[in-house]
Amino acid sequence: MPSVEIIAIGNELLLGDVLDTNTHWLCRQISALGGRVQRGALIPDDPQAIAETLQAALQREPDLIVLTGGLGPTSDDKTLASVATALGRPLELNQQALAMVRATYERLAARELVHDAELSEVRRKMAYLPRGAEPLHNPVGAAPGVLLREGKTAVVCLPGVPPEMKGIFTTSLQPLLREIFGGGVFLERVLVTDCGDESRLAPIVNRVAAAHPRVYVKSRAQAYRKGRRLRITLSLSGTDPQAVKEAIDAADRDLTAQLAAAGIAVLERVEGG
Amino acid sequence: MPSVEIIAIGNELLLGDVLDTNTHWLCRQISALGGRVQRGALIPDDPQAIAETLQAALQREPDLIVLTGGLGPTSDDKTLASVATALGRPLELNQQALAMVRATYERLAARELVHDAELSEVRRKMAYLPRGAEPLHNPVGAAPGVLLREGKTAVVCLPGVPPEMKGIFTTSLQPLLREIFGGGVFLERVLVTDCGDESRLAPIVNRVAAAHPRVYVKSRAQAYRKGRRLRITLSLSGTDPQAVKEAIDAADRDLTAQLAAAGIAVLERVEGG
Repeated sequence: MPSVEIIAIGNELLLGDVLDTNTHWLCRQISALGGRVQRGALIPDDPQAIAETLQAALQREPDLIVLTGGLGPTSDDKTLASVATALGRPLELNQQALAMVRATYERLAARELVHDAELSEVRRKMAYLPRGAEPLHNPVGAAPGVLLREGKTAVVCLPGVPPEMKGIFTTSLQPLLREIFGGGVFLERVLVTDCGDESRLAPIVNRVAAAHPRVYVKSRAQAYRKGRRLRITLSLSGTDPQAVKEAIDAADRDLTAQLAAAGIAVLERVEGG
Repeated sequence: MPSVEIIAIGNELLLGDVLDTNTHWLCRQISALGGRVQRGALIPDDPQAIAETLQAALQREPDLIVLTGGLGPTSDDKTLASVATALGRPLELNQQALAMVRATYERLAARELVHDAELSEVRRKMAYLPRGAEPLHNPVGAAPGVLLREGKTAVVCLPGVPPEMKGIFTTSLQPLLREIFGGGVFLERVLVTDCGDESRLAPIVNRVAAAHPRVYVKSRAQAYRKGRRLRITLSLSGTDPQAVKEAIDAADRDLTAQLAAAGIAVLERVEGG
């Protein structure tokens, strides 16, 4: 299964000022496309932390590394310079990226969202990319996304502002990921039980997981309360939609039978993925 | 400043099923207590990933490492066994933890939130801790938290269910952290400007940050929209509250003057920390 790592960058995340929702959103998208996120990192706007974290991720040779945050115009936006250092590439003015930044400020100035369209130094900064990078059109904001290839790994840098991150992902990245991931599928089914005691479900979940090693079987922990109905998730990724569905169905039948034998009913099934 | 790393564990986080809000909450709490979170990790319920991530964090010798998730009764709750492996300590039945688990199930059974109070195998699992660990009372759920000392680092394992994580943190950890962190303070002030163009703020923010290197100065990026009012955050941690406030005040005066010279007004100040 195609493997992915996500690196979220920003002091504001580690200070607890801003909740990082980008990683979660990317995990959902990547799972739905048949990829598997193996690891996430949350690091400050610090060149050494960025370079070290990227190098450690590259050593694990995932198919894709996504970095979010730190692409903007201010001096604490250090992602691209740090990525260039980590990859041993110079940072240079990318004409295609400059054209994107220029077009964005012309559009924003025409809508009077910024004062003028002049390409000041801080605006030009967003067009300096590591050598060999391909800029990705940002349909929402000013900083282009960045795509690099390093060995077998695609490295993608996206802005940290969620609508910009999502805009670039949806416009430019989804087609690329379908290609990298080779049309994988992901299926998830949630069984809502009438049981509120995780320790009663545990032996059943353990047995079903052992009997269906390809399927991921997990009861979702929750805070204790009257009438809580624990959920059990079955999920699987693969390349053959039919085989994925059959494996989930088989685990579901086995799980339902073992729950019934313990006097636990399945109240509802929710399908996703 | 006391340094902290956070490791969030759970396949459901990487699948995008569940948004990890624990790390954010812990970052806020730790910042408010005067600590600095240097790094966060998001990893699956995989013994090797847990052990490797913990070992890498220990090599950086932070004052505190907090792990969340994977303390429950099911077989995919692998945190404590993996921590034991990483630290080269055996996992053994902790009598104090067993007493906590017993008391919890007696309480839950009395309130009819579980069927019985019997200490079944899966329930006893939560009382197996790495040697030398101290269990931390869980006021909300069944799995105790765990405190270990490894070299100069305190290693704390908390459940992933947010009310349980918060309950243990507030009851047992806050006093410990005040001791580890030595009564540090954190002050944050947010200036709301009437400027919507981050590239106009950038040179000012850069100059003020350079002139006040101890203070963290950052403009918060946002999606473009009519009438957006960008915010600039000033923050600083330290041990002397008066010195922290004076440094923030000095940066604030400098920033306000430079904004005014550029025709940008400060509409509001929000104090926090």
